[in-house]
Amino acid sequence: MIPKAMVVAGVMSGTSADGVDVAICRVSPAVDAKSSPRVKVLGYRSFAYDKKLRAAVLAAMDAKATSAAELARLSWRLGEVYAECVSQTAHELELKPQLVACHGQTIYHQGEAQKYLGEPLRCTWQLGEAALIAERMRVPVVSDFRPADMAAGGQAAPLVPMLDFCLFRHATKNRLLLNLGGIANVSALPAGAGVDDVLAFDTGPSNMVIDACMLRLFEKRFDANGAIAARGLVLRDVVTKLMEAKYFSALPPKSCGREEYGEAFVDRFIVLCGRGAKKQDVIATATAFTAETVLDAYRRFCWPHLGQKAPMARATELFAAGGGTQNATLMRMLSDGFLRLGVKVATTAAMGVATEAKEAAAFALMGWLTWHGLPGNVPAATGAKRAVVLGKVSYV
Amino acid sequence: MIPKAMVVAGVMSGTSADGVDVAICRVSPAVDAKSSPRVKVLGYRSFAYDKKLRAAVLAAMDAKATSAAELARLSWRLGEVYAECVSQTAHELELKPQLVACHGQTIYHQGEAQKYLGEPLRCTWQLGEAALIAERMRVPVVSDFRPADMAAGGQAAPLVPMLDFCLFRHATKNRLLLNLGGIANVSALPAGAGVDDVLAFDTGPSNMVIDACMLRLFEKRFDANGAIAARGLVLRDVVTKLMEAKYFSALPPKSCGREEYGEAFVDRFIVLCGRGAKKQDVIATATAFTAETVLDAYRRFCWPHLGQKAPMARATELFAAGGGTQNATLMRMLSDGFLRLGVKVATTAAMGVATEAKEAAAFALMGWLTWHGLPGNVPAATGAKRAVVLGKVSYV
Repeated sequence: MIPKAMVVAGVMSGTSADGVDVAICRVSPAVDAKSSPRVKVLGYRSFAYDKKLRAAVLAAMDAKATSAAELARLSWRLGEVYAECVSQTAHELELKPQLVACHGQTIYHQGEAQKYLGEPLRCTWQLGEAALIAERMRVPVVSDFRPADMAAGGQAAPLVPMLDFCLFRHATKNRLLLNLGGIANVSALPAGAGVDDVLAFDTGPSNMVIDACMLRLFEKRFDANGAIAARGLVLRDVVTKLMEAKYFSALPPKSCGREEYGEAFVDRFIVLCGRGAKKQDVIATATAFTAETVLDAYRRFCWPHLGQKAPMARATELFAAGGGTQNATLMRMLSDGFLRLGVKVATTAAMGVATEAKEAAAFALMGWLTWHGLPGNVPAATGAKRAVVLGKVSYV
Repeated sequence: MIPKAMVVAGVMSGTSADGVDVAICRVSPAVDAKSSPRVKVLGYRSFAYDKKLRAAVLAAMDAKATSAAELARLSWRLGEVYAECVSQTAHELELKPQLVACHGQTIYHQGEAQKYLGEPLRCTWQLGEAALIAERMRVPVVSDFRPADMAAGGQAAPLVPMLDFCLFRHATKNRLLLNLGGIANVSALPAGAGVDDVLAFDTGPSNMVIDACMLRLFEKRFDANGAIAARGLVLRDVVTKLMEAKYFSALPPKSCGREEYGEAFVDRFIVLCGRGAKKQDVIATATAFTAETVLDAYRRFCWPHLGQKAPMARATELFAAGGGTQNATLMRMLSDGFLRLGVKVATTAAMGVATEAKEAAAFALMGWLTWHGLPGNVPAATGAKRAVVLGKVSYV
C-alpha cells in the first residue's frame, strides 16, 4: 500500500489511570528516503475517568481477587469510554479521523520472564474493546500495540521512541526526549541518528509515586504545580537508599510499571521516610527521587563509553512532555540537575507538540504505520529481535 | 481487494475447554454472484490441553478470585499453545497456511445486558495472544472474531452459521445443521435461503453438562461413545422440569455458555436427579436433556407460524458435527426423536466435512472473509443490526 496522508486520532491512557488523551493528527508520508513520516497535531482533548471507573481500573491492576467477568466488563466499558472521547474530540474540533489508534489501558505488564505453568513467560495486557470504537466511528481502529513487539522478543516498551525519532531527531544536535507520565521514559537521539541508534528506556517512576503519596497523605490526586513539594524538605538519605535498587543500574532496554512502583512500593517508601518526616517532606522526597532517577539514567547510560551503537556525545537539549511537566517543582529539579550536566531543559511545546498530546500523537503515528504495513517499534529501545508491524486492526 | 483463493488455518477452542482443533482449508472465492465462497478442508488435527493448562482455563472461567496477572499470563500461554498447534499441523500435513484464523478460548460471554458501573453492558472475551501466532508462523492472523458483532448489537454467537450457509444450503431441501460442542447450536437453512433467511441459535448445553457429570461421578472427562448413558435410565421428570427454564422458550436470536450451564447448573441438576438415582441414570438423564433441548428448539422455532422471514417447511435432513457426534447414545436419541419429526440425521462427514474439523473450518472461512474486508456474521443468527467485518488482524 502506498503511504498516504491521513487524519488519525491517537488515544492514550497512561499507567496513572487518570483518564484519556485524544490527539487528532495529520500523519503524512516521508518526502524522501532520508526523512520520516510527519505528524502534525491538529487538536487534542483530555478526559478524566469518572471516579467509579478510575476505582475499577486501579482495582483491576492491583487486586489479587477479581473475576474474568469483571475484567471483561471493564474492557468493554473502557471501549465505550474511548469511543465517546474520540467522538467528542472529533466533534469539538470539527475533524473527521480516517483511522483511530487506541493504546488502551495497561492492566498488567511483565517485561521479564517468570515461570507460569512450569514454563517461562512474559506478557503485556491492555484493556479497551476496539470494536466499540470502530462501530461508533465507522472507521478502522488499530489497537493492542504492545504484544507484537513482545512476541518478537522485546519488552513492548517504550513505544514512544518512534515518534521521538521521526519528529525530534536533529542532524547536528544530540537530544533527549523525556516523557513524564505515570512512568518516566527517555529517548536519547544522537545527532543524525538512524532508527537503530535510538537509546530509549523507562527510567523509573514519574507521577505514579508522587500521585499515590498525595492521595494517601493529602487526599488529592496530584501535587498541583508541585506546590506541596516546593514547601517540603527533600530527605536525601531516602533518595540515596532508593537509588540502590537494581533497576537503576540494569542496562537498557528495560521497562517498568505499576508492578514495580504501585501500592507496595509506596508502602515501603513512606516507611522509609520515617515518622519524623512532615507530609510535605514525603512529597518533596518522592519528587526529588523521580528527578534523580532521570538524571541518574542520563549519567549512567547516555555516555559514550558504554558502547552504544552510535556513541553519543553529551546531549545539549532535553524536551519533556507528559503530565509531570505541570509539576513546577519536578521541572525545576530536573532543570537544575541537567543544567549542571550541560543540558538545557524545555518542553515539547517549544517544538510544536503540546505536552499533553505527545503520547496520543505517538500512537496516531504508530496506527498510521500499522495501517500501511510499516513497523512501529524501535528494536534498539524495546530489545525486540526485529522491527515488526504493531497492533491489531479492526475493520468496519 | 479482489478475493483470491488462500490456504487458511482455522483454530478453535470450544467452551468445553478440552483443547485445540486446527483445520487447514483452501478457501476460494464465489464463482458468481449467486454462489458463496468455498471451503475445502485439506487436513486437520486435534490437540488436548495438558492437565495444568485445562485446570487454569477452567479456573479462569469459573473462579471469582483471579488476578489480572493470572489472566494475562493465561492469554499469552494460550497464544503459545495455539502457535505450536498450528505449526505442528502445518508441518505434519506439509501445508503452508497463508493466513491463520484463531477463535481463542472464551473465558466470559454475556449476551444480555447487565448493569456495570451504573450502565447496562454486554461483553464477550476470548483469550490467546494472536501476536505469538503471527510471530511464529510469519503470516497474518485474524483473531477476536466475536466483539465486532456484539458492538453492532448482536449476541456475538453463533458464528458458525456463515459456514453452514456457504457450504450446506440447498436449492430445494430444508436443512438443519447441528453443532454438538460444549454448547449445542442449530442453523436452519430453508431451501434456496439467502443469508438473511438463516435461523440459528444456541439450543442449550451439549457436552458441557454431560462431561461435568462424568467428571464428578466417574472421574472421567467424557462418556466415551455414550456407553454409560446407554446403561442408565432416563429420569423423564427431571428432563421435563429442566425444560421449563425460560431460555428454551425465549425467541431466537439467543446464546448461552458456561455462565448458564457451568458448575452451578450441574450442582442443581444432580440434586434434581435425587439420591435414589444411580450414577449412570444421571448421565443418561443429562444426555436425554441435551437431546430434548435440540428437539424442542426445532419444534418451537423451525415451524413456519413463528413468522421467520423465509418461513420454513419441515426440514428433511440434519447434519451434525462436533464432539457430541462421538456419543452414540446422544446421537441415537437425536436420530429417534428427529425421525419421528420426519428429519433424517447424519453427520457432516457425509457432506465431506469431518465432524472434528467443522468449527475450525468455520473460522478459516471467517478469517478469509475478514482478510478480504467481507462481513462474516449472519445478523439473522446473532441479532446484529448489520453485517460487519469480524475480528482483528495482526500483521507480521
